[in-house]
Amino acid sequence: MEWAIGVDGGGTHTRAAIVDTTGVVRGVRIGDGGNFQRIGATGLQDLLGQLLPPLLALAEPNAVSLCLALAGVGRETEQRQIAAMVERGGWTGTVRVESDARAALEGAHAGAPGLIVTAGTGSMVLGRNDRDNMVRAGGWGPLLGDEGSGYYMGLQALRAVTRCLDGSGADTALVAALAAELGLEDWDQLVPEVYGGKIDHGRIAALGPAVSNVADCGDAVALHIVDSAGAALAGQVVAVAQRLGMAESVNLSCLGGVFAEGSLLETALMKAIALQINDLRLRPAHLPAVLGAVLLAWGRDGDLPSEEQLARLRKSRLQGL
Amino acid sequence: MEWAIGVDGGGTHTRAAIVDTTGVVRGVRIGDGGNFQRIGATGLQDLLGQLLPPLLALAEPNAVSLCLALAGVGRETEQRQIAAMVERGGWTGTVRVESDARAALEGAHAGAPGLIVTAGTGSMVLGRNDRDNMVRAGGWGPLLGDEGSGYYMGLQALRAVTRCLDGSGADTALVAALAAELGLEDWDQLVPEVYGGKIDHGRIAALGPAVSNVADCGDAVALHIVDSAGAALAGQVVAVAQRLGMAESVNLSCLGGVFAEGSLLETALMKAIALQINDLRLRPAHLPAVLGAVLLAWGRDGDLPSEEQLARLRKSRLQGL
Repeated sequence: MEWAIGVDGGGTHTRAAIVDTTGVVRGVRIGDGGNFQRIGATGLQDLLGQLLPPLLALAEPNAVSLCLALAGVGRETEQRQIAAMVERGGWTGTVRVESDARAALEGAHAGAPGLIVTAGTGSMVLGRNDRDNMVRAGGWGPLLGDEGSGYYMGLQALRAVTRCLDGSGADTALVAALAAELGLEDWDQLVPEVYGGKIDHGRIAALGPAVSNVADCGDAVALHIVDSAGAALAGQVVAVAQRLGMAESVNLSCLGGVFAEGSLLETALMKAIALQINDLRLRPAHLPAVLGAVLLAWGRDGDLPSEEQLARLRKSRLQGL
Repeated sequence: MEWAIGVDGGGTHTRAAIVDTTGVVRGVRIGDGGNFQRIGATGLQDLLGQLLPPLLALAEPNAVSLCLALAGVGRETEQRQIAAMVERGGWTGTVRVESDARAALEGAHAGAPGLIVTAGTGSMVLGRNDRDNMVRAGGWGPLLGDEGSGYYMGLQALRAVTRCLDGSGADTALVAALAAELGLEDWDQLVPEVYGGKIDHGRIAALGPAVSNVADCGDAVALHIVDSAGAALAGQVVAVAQRLGMAESVNLSCLGGVFAEGSLLETALMKAIALQINDLRLRPAHLPAVLGAVLLAWGRDGDLPSEEQLARLRKSRLQGL
């Protein structure tokens, strides 16, 4: 097992960590967003130029395995192009390029088969079985899907408010809560601010926690939004499990800011899954995605980490990773 | 009753018609889109500069009443500003500025109380009672509402396709129908084409008829989309009727391209309304919106059209208005 660097490039931040042969995290760097669709080849080169040299300076003069796990890199052709670019840039060790979700999955189950459901700004379900088949559901983006994401819950809540204002929907405490959250004095401001871009994708996604709070207080409309989001994500989990031949027994981790904000969505999700899968084991993620990327870097060489190495990686939690 | 010009400024076309004192349409002009939010004050002046002089040349040298009914002009302050602008431009007769939906409502019921539900690219419900109260529901735009619009049905259908592809939703003939409609060889193209803007708002809205066709063939997923759209619009109709004190008896006209494409949405709508309103009278629109604007121009002077005048206006249908 070589030294390895894992890189987890998300929408707003990129984390990079270097791990020695025994599984000890020797250094961590945090940089700007690493979504390849947004920053492109030049942006990625700049980002790696900032993140990697200080980490490499910590390594012994061995070859280092690298795994770049980046948002916006779902297709194999892109992954190969990025790997070739890094090799042209003078990288001498092995290079593996994956999606950030793949690294999150690897980290969540410490390399074992299982599923993740992520719900942050967007949402998706990803799973892998013991024959190394990968299956995805969701992740179609804000217009075409993203059920259960912060954006989905925020938008559903705004729609519920408009129906309430029209008199065609039930009364809901969301009206007051979202007006406060958005700083609106009058709901007449909603249409110009949404279509004028002042209330943009990010601000709608940030309404997710407020929706959860209102649901926590027992508001029926907000509860329905959370329940339907949980049911939609559950449908994706069950579909992925079936396609992977794991319809009876599933290890699942729930990741992302919407779950962290409160357990209501998780409860709704688990309830809906339990109707269709007998043996559902909900597990907190073993390792963060950046260390999932380290596992993927090692895996490229055919090695599997030992229990001792995993135990040392897990201690990195204490270092705030 | 004076000569009057009605102008119906929609998203893609603007129609203008001049009507003499007896109710005979003496001339019609068609120009570019008249959505005030898009074309602004300068664009509107250009548009009126093209449309009005040829019509005024047909009028006897009397004062002519004008009603501009424009998309994107919902607020009274805007309406006053536009009227003042036209008067500064040298218009000597009366000027009234309204939303295009207001003119559609006036035309649909020939000035009598009633409701309209429009479903084209967008959707909304508008009604007026015999005390001249106006109430609206829906019309919140593509992100916040527009249930039952072509865009809504197209987007719901695309979401149903993604769920079917994921295995988390039922099989549906929409997969083949929409791929053909969008010219997609592979659904992997969907995400880049939607978020890259190639499949834009207009192209999604244009999927409405295809969804209706698939529903007509008995596809359960497409039928559910149409039924839920009808139920959502029905909720708006009932809410408007209640707020207008017409909860027992309603005159309703269904307008817009989605209704014209087939009667399935209308059937779903009527079925859902009938559960809540006893005396529902579905009526085809008496007059097009541009002649609704003529009625509004006349109404500004406090006059009501006679039966003879209305009968002559109605004959304009034969002239393709």
